[in-house]
Amino acid sequence: MENCIFCKIVKGEIPSYKVYEDDLFLAFLNINPAISGQILLIPKKHYRWVCDVIEFDQYWQIARKIATSLKNSDLKPDFVSFVTVGKDVPHAHIHIIPRKTDDSINMGLEGNFESKPSDEEFIKTSNLIKNSLK
Amino acid sequence: MENCIFCKIVKGEIPSYKVYEDDLFLAFLNINPAISGQILLIPKKHYRWVCDVIEFDQYWQIARKIATSLKNSDLKPDFVSFVTVGKDVPHAHIHIIPRKTDDSINMGLEGNFESKPSDEEFIKTSNLIKNSLK
Repeated sequence: MENCIFCKIVKGEIPSYKVYEDDLFLAFLNINPAISGQILLIPKKHYRWVCDVIEFDQYWQIARKIATSLKNSDLKPDFVSFVTVGKDVPHAHIHIIPRKTDDSINMGLEGNFESKPSDEEFIKTSNLIKNSLK
Repeated sequence: MENCIFCKIVKGEIPSYKVYEDDLFLAFLNINPAISGQILLIPKKHYRWVCDVIEFDQYWQIARKIATSLKNSDLKPDFVSFVTVGKDVPHAHIHIIPRKTDDSINMGLEGNFESKPSDEEFIKTSNLIKNSLK
């Protein structure tokens, strides 16, 4: 897609530090990492979201392969996080992040326990989701 | 596994707001969400990490199915994030998070641009990862 920074990286119009490439996917270092070794894994073809990628199984299998290699690498992470966001660059990407148990990344996924939803709100939300899955 | 909170949820020894269940996997609401509708998707069998799950393709296909349903649900998220961390509960889990473009979740994945690694450091790190992938 024109003006997509990741499509330009695929085409070589913007340089990148590649770590993996095959016919369908490309992985390269995040140019502004919070932790050394942060990787972005993208499909070469332009898709908006990770869930849109036709070769979805293959996509995650490569993410798994890279994560396993990172774990065994000299970066010696304690674990590896996968994250999909996608509001900044509108081209599907999986962040693959070598983590340390005591690193500074706080994903902000936990709410304030004192303001957590009521039982009624949880039931309403879970019913809503269950119905959408039918 | 004994004393694993997610194994206890699978066995019904701890209650949960379930949204999806099949023979192998269970999805339920995060009890302390940063955003309404945050889901945890786990394998019923105890695995330490997401990458360890034997039925890995099936696991992500269910995550995709739930994400697609969330997108079409009355929660009306702008997009859906997948996150794997796993340092708190040592049982594989995928966070599935209905997001708003302007929500308060900041995953902290971007570094300080002024202190980003040098070209030499990027090359060293990418070579290290490439070698681990061989």
